[in-house]
Amino acid sequence: MKITVVGTGSFGTSLAMVLVDNDHDVRIYGRNEDVVKEINEKHTNNRYLKDVPLPDSIRAISNLEEGVSHAEILVLAVPVKAVRSVTKDINALLKRLHKKVLIVHVAKGLELDTHLRVSEVIAEETTEDTVQDICVLSGPSHAEEVAKRSPTTVSTASLKPESAKIIQDVFMNKYFRVYHNDDMIGVEIGGALKNIIALAIGLLHGLDFGDNAKAAIITRGLQEIARLGTRMGANPLTFLGLTGMGDLIVTATSMHSRNYRCGIMLAEGRTIEEAQQEMGMVVEGVNTTRAAYELAAQYDVEMPITKVLYQYLFEDISEEEAFYALMMREKTGETDELKDVLEKQYKDWTRE
Amino acid sequence: MKITVVGTGSFGTSLAMVLVDNDHDVRIYGRNEDVVKEINEKHTNNRYLKDVPLPDSIRAISNLEEGVSHAEILVLAVPVKAVRSVTKDINALLKRLHKKVLIVHVAKGLELDTHLRVSEVIAEETTEDTVQDICVLSGPSHAEEVAKRSPTTVSTASLKPESAKIIQDVFMNKYFRVYHNDDMIGVEIGGALKNIIALAIGLLHGLDFGDNAKAAIITRGLQEIARLGTRMGANPLTFLGLTGMGDLIVTATSMHSRNYRCGIMLAEGRTIEEAQQEMGMVVEGVNTTRAAYELAAQYDVEMPITKVLYQYLFEDISEEEAFYALMMREKTGETDELKDVLEKQYKDWTRE
Repeated sequence: MKITVVGTGSFGTSLAMVLVDNDHDVRIYGRNEDVVKEINEKHTNNRYLKDVPLPDSIRAISNLEEGVSHAEILVLAVPVKAVRSVTKDINALLKRLHKKVLIVHVAKGLELDTHLRVSEVIAEETTEDTVQDICVLSGPSHAEEVAKRSPTTVSTASLKPESAKIIQDVFMNKYFRVYHNDDMIGVEIGGALKNIIALAIGLLHGLDFGDNAKAAIITRGLQEIARLGTRMGANPLTFLGLTGMGDLIVTATSMHSRNYRCGIMLAEGRTIEEAQQEMGMVVEGVNTTRAAYELAAQYDVEMPITKVLYQYLFEDISEEEAFYALMMREKTGETDELKDVLEKQYKDWTRE
Repeated sequence: MKITVVGTGSFGTSLAMVLVDNDHDVRIYGRNEDVVKEINEKHTNNRYLKDVPLPDSIRAISNLEEGVSHAEILVLAVPVKAVRSVTKDINALLKRLHKKVLIVHVAKGLELDTHLRVSEVIAEETTEDTVQDICVLSGPSHAEEVAKRSPTTVSTASLKPESAKIIQDVFMNKYFRVYHNDDMIGVEIGGALKNIIALAIGLLHGLDFGDNAKAAIITRGLQEIARLGTRMGANPLTFLGLTGMGDLIVTATSMHSRNYRCGIMLAEGRTIEEAQQEMGMVVEGVNTTRAAYELAAQYDVEMPITKVLYQYLFEDISEEEAFYALMMREKTGETDELKDVLEKQYKDWTRE
């Protein structure tokens, strides 16, 4: 198929490689002329995928119209905060070209002011005559490993069930396994909110907490993600799958994860801005923490880890104060809380 | 309270330290005279807890009768395969001394031939006139970190609800948080079976699989543990808590974990015996794999990861064959499988 990946970041580039391996006709669009030139001439993308040779057949372009005109499927691999404006541009081009595409996005986060999921932002900026359907592809998938063809499993969800099956067929191969899931909300919320926990775990690591503490926070982190997600309409079981628990584990325990590394830098005393600049990539967890904190209030859901991280990032509490309080929170019956939360979730979810 | 820890291994020793911090009158019993002498004279236990200074007030003894005679609570911290014989000895002493104790065990595994949980083995070897109740203490708790007073959270369960609350009071302090859980089966099965997945993840690491693959196997690993556990009568929600997901994460992602390290050594070409000898500690996951494999057949539950690991450890399949097959297993709908399994589990469990 004719596919254009929008975004020359690490994940966009690695997905373009998967698609080329699957014999699709692939373009990759980027705004940065230097990156585009490097991909076309040197067949590398050293800023985002260091030391990975790209296949010659990946053609990079810096003209969005060329990309839109080429595509039957558009893979949106841009940071969350760029999704709305890029989608607006794409939609205008689609209208002008009188064509209709399938969009699959891979962004993990929530829009800052609206708190919308990425597929909701895309839906707001497109129409039925330009977009056939909106899908998400998510799961434990560090770009660096995908680019090395290391075995990876992800899930895809879509608004119309048949679209996820198309996306599955397009991406699936020997090392990149794609499952479909019918819970768009759960897949997007899991992918977005795990970055909060990864940031928190990076901070704990930087503050010299051990693996015991980190495992406890990851466990409780997934519980609070599931709590909010279910209240927003997700299937609680999705949080036990690849896009929930799986992605949380990979993000919160691997140095490949930029949110985890950002947490470590913050613990070392750097500001959010310094940490982001040093990495040269967007750290979605920072904005997502704010969005989730506000959503927790809106949906009246308890999210103690998100709350502490929010206070640490945007208010004036010290890390020691924050995280010792988190670990030492009074609680006695483990299943009392777990049961209350999950049984209620389960009942809410099955009732609908 | 007067407490005797039976077993001078790493976890037993670190728990004795917690109990001393909580001002209990603590003895630690070990068969090895050299270790006992080292604890009493040098206040170290370098074989099991390298470079950790022990408090002077931990008194080690090599006479089991002295330990049993001292104790109101016995903490059983011996390898699973030693539980039956040690309990038999303890019970004979209790009978002779006409006394009754509370037993809490911390062993993570299943008895090899009987497939019994550790609390069931203890129950078989004791009587109501010698043992007030049997409890388990489990969760993400590397001994090395507990000994450094690094924040740690665990759960305790017991046959009679009031006993878990006693154990909680006895162990709880600022850095060691104890929650109670009323699901003895779930707590014990989670603790035992996570060692299988940790072994598998160590193997994957040694075979150069990446974090994406490991996260997928950890996720599916918890699902198969929950599947068997629930069939055995556990509450499925327990597997989402500290003794399930929490302990699995810490065991499968940390170099502190001997099961994980054992898997790496196996991938490097060492035999099971060589790996165990090199570590100088028991690797519970090896025997647990066999027990779980047999239990899966008995309960007619699908456990693909356990099955592959069993074939690799005890039959003659190569690691590449085994693990690529595992990653590449045909499957399309993620939630199809998840939903089937967990909804059924949930229904089974709530029906009882």
